[in-house]
Amino acid sequence: MPAASPRITGFETHDVRFPTSGQLDGSDAMNPDPDYSAAYLILRTDADGDAPEGAGGAAEGHGFVFTIGRGNDVQVAAIEALRHHVLGLPVDDLCADPGKLARTLADDSQLRWLGPEKGVMHMAVGAVLNAVWDLAAKRARKPLWKLLADASPEWLVSQVDFRYLTDALTPDEALALLRRGRRDRERREAALLERGYPAYTTSPGWLGYSDEKLARLAREAVAEGFTQIKLKVGADPADDVRRCRTARAAIGDGVRLAVDANQRWDVAEAVARTRVLAEFDPYWIEEPTSPDDVLGHAAIRAAVAPVRVATGEHAHNRVVVKQLLRAGAIDVLQIDATRVGGVNENLAILLLAARFGVPVCPHAGGVGLCELVQHLAMFDYVALSGTTEDRAIEYVDHLHEHFLDPVVIRRGHYAAPTAPGFSAAMRRESIARHTFPHGEYWAARRAADEEAPA
Amino acid sequence: MPAASPRITGFETHDVRFPTSGQLDGSDAMNPDPDYSAAYLILRTDADGDAPEGAGGAAEGHGFVFTIGRGNDVQVAAIEALRHHVLGLPVDDLCADPGKLARTLADDSQLRWLGPEKGVMHMAVGAVLNAVWDLAAKRARKPLWKLLADASPEWLVSQVDFRYLTDALTPDEALALLRRGRRDRERREAALLERGYPAYTTSPGWLGYSDEKLARLAREAVAEGFTQIKLKVGADPADDVRRCRTARAAIGDGVRLAVDANQRWDVAEAVARTRVLAEFDPYWIEEPTSPDDVLGHAAIRAAVAPVRVATGEHAHNRVVVKQLLRAGAIDVLQIDATRVGGVNENLAILLLAARFGVPVCPHAGGVGLCELVQHLAMFDYVALSGTTEDRAIEYVDHLHEHFLDPVVIRRGHYAAPTAPGFSAAMRRESIARHTFPHGEYWAARRAADEEAPA
Repeated sequence: MPAASPRITGFETHDVRFPTSGQLDGSDAMNPDPDYSAAYLILRTDADGDAPEGAGGAAEGHGFVFTIGRGNDVQVAAIEALRHHVLGLPVDDLCADPGKLARTLADDSQLRWLGPEKGVMHMAVGAVLNAVWDLAAKRARKPLWKLLADASPEWLVSQVDFRYLTDALTPDEALALLRRGRRDRERREAALLERGYPAYTTSPGWLGYSDEKLARLAREAVAEGFTQIKLKVGADPADDVRRCRTARAAIGDGVRLAVDANQRWDVAEAVARTRVLAEFDPYWIEEPTSPDDVLGHAAIRAAVAPVRVATGEHAHNRVVVKQLLRAGAIDVLQIDATRVGGVNENLAILLLAARFGVPVCPHAGGVGLCELVQHLAMFDYVALSGTTEDRAIEYVDHLHEHFLDPVVIRRGHYAAPTAPGFSAAMRRESIARHTFPHGEYWAARRAADEEAPA
Repeated sequence: MPAASPRITGFETHDVRFPTSGQLDGSDAMNPDPDYSAAYLILRTDADGDAPEGAGGAAEGHGFVFTIGRGNDVQVAAIEALRHHVLGLPVDDLCADPGKLARTLADDSQLRWLGPEKGVMHMAVGAVLNAVWDLAAKRARKPLWKLLADASPEWLVSQVDFRYLTDALTPDEALALLRRGRRDRERREAALLERGYPAYTTSPGWLGYSDEKLARLAREAVAEGFTQIKLKVGADPADDVRRCRTARAAIGDGVRLAVDANQRWDVAEAVARTRVLAEFDPYWIEEPTSPDDVLGHAAIRAAVAPVRVATGEHAHNRVVVKQLLRAGAIDVLQIDATRVGGVNENLAILLLAARFGVPVCPHAGGVGLCELVQHLAMFDYVALSGTTEDRAIEYVDHLHEHFLDPVVIRRGHYAAPTAPGFSAAMRRESIARHTFPHGEYWAARRAADEEAPA
């Protein structure tokens, strides 16, 4: 008689917040004072190897939604609303077919009303699925990128929800893309393990930094091997020009300079403001307007060429991405690991990008986004698009010390993770210390605030 | 010395759920078992006339988000996350300029990440603003539609957030539309008070009803004076044909028959399934595919004409509506009172519809949606579009008994509300009895479930 499968026995959520607003790290035109946060989920199982005090064991799956502070409690509540769909599931079946749970969660007819497939409720679905993928990769003893790259095209297609996609991508077309993508994958896997995946860095370019700090960090980035940096723009026009000039002078002509407006502009303003910056040869203009405005992005792209248009980190689901691609609205697609419905929906999005031949340059930074999204880009390189040309993963040097398997950057490249899992596990002591509002850090800060003179 | 303004002194939320799933009322192809619910907010003030036991006094503002059951607690948590923006505000200033609070809520840089402007967090903003508008109308001693219709075009324009709209609608264009809309408004106001606003009914057409019940209710609707009914479709194709035939036979050729697929189809399937139903002369096909798929709706519309395409109840903000209109994707726009950012964003949406000359037929039903949305349609008639031609507000005969100022239907028309406010106030005893999970109804049901044999 075969042993019964272990089951999901615990569904544990945490409201974790880091006080980044104090340093103006992460400041941009739309988000002046973020406190990088995670609505964090741990799935526990009764499999051998479960160690309640450990965070990386094969018997746990970790996932989260990245937020920027207030409302992280709402995001935790949304994850909690999915508890009943997950507790008690047999782990073997769950890890063999995360897509089945993805459909169950998408089809909860009552919860669906709160989206559908967008916002807080949809990101909660993503956190649960990402935790399942972390568990599946750990049990397979592979980093997630390798689990995906080794999987059969047929199985990968079974993990995708093609609803609302078939006018742009059918299951058969996806299968053909994946079959083509597998050819010579051993060679690319070896290259990935040797060189890593290209990165670009946003660390020099936060809006709250002085010109001196910007120039110094930009020079350091080039010295460290980065071939692209990114600058936040979109507040004062004169500042944009001065900062772009400062950055371009610091990095020289051979390094790409991307600029990011974080949704600050209407369409006409986006066109005018981007044209003013054209003298500094920006590689792309990112989020020039509302992330919902597919037609607006298409109009901007037509007007600002040859400057590329990049967006996608706030594209709330595969239907928006489908339209961005169909409308010819973007040159660069920026996927995000925790905005959509987990690995399953990001597979759909990577397939759409491959179908339309648009390069994917993932959004990262925040807390834990680099750790997660590198796996998706590396899978794409090894077994789908087959190239890193004009592709790079965003890198920000924030908060990695809180993760058990933090990203490693070498000469401007992400080193391929080799530890099993999705690199999602945050250190237990970091979770405890930064739990809001009662963790040690926040309790001490509140006490200090109360003692301070008014 | 002038008396100080009263202030917002209370921010009280309730998780209210009605057990509608037991009757298959409200069942459709995507939502088979809804429990109509409200994430409910009461703003209290210290103005004279505040009566904690009453629900309709001039000193309280009521608002809510309609949901269909599970997750109503998440929606309540999202409303609670806005508490700190509202408590303590001076009521006079707040009611003189709800748009100022609208901008404060939209600009909360940390909460914004959870949308932006979509899903649970955005609907929470809508509930807060709608409660403020209820309070403002009560203090003005006018029903909301009349408050809006009497307001100056300049003030109405000041209530709209034009961000992301100016490529389709500028403040000056909005002002011109409102000035044109005011001409002869006394005549239309008199007509509205005499005849009411046209309604159509969805009560006969729920997917879970038998053919006999469908035919009987359809005949009754025509006898009651409705000139349009709506049928849910989108599950089994043969059922759709049979039900359309049944309905058409029951109502005859002179009554409009709309069909509603509730997002069930991909683009090609929507075209094929709608064409099959064309023999029954459907007036519109509603929500044929994903509410996010602007380009998909445009493709469907081009393929199924002369059948009209209607959508909008799940359009999550003004940017989506702008695109639906710009892309020529719809013939009929279906606004919803609690999906977007309150009256302020619905003003933007009504202005967009007027700009593009597309008729607005509001979505209603659920719990309280009829009560709210009638005010928006009536304002549009009296002081913006100036017509009810090809326009009707959805009507469903559910749960009105729980409201202090329920809608009144006469000869297929909504009678214009005359009581001050937004008709949002639910009876205190209804809230208490249906509070989930500890109100009297749910406690009794749980006790009964526990006693029932397994």
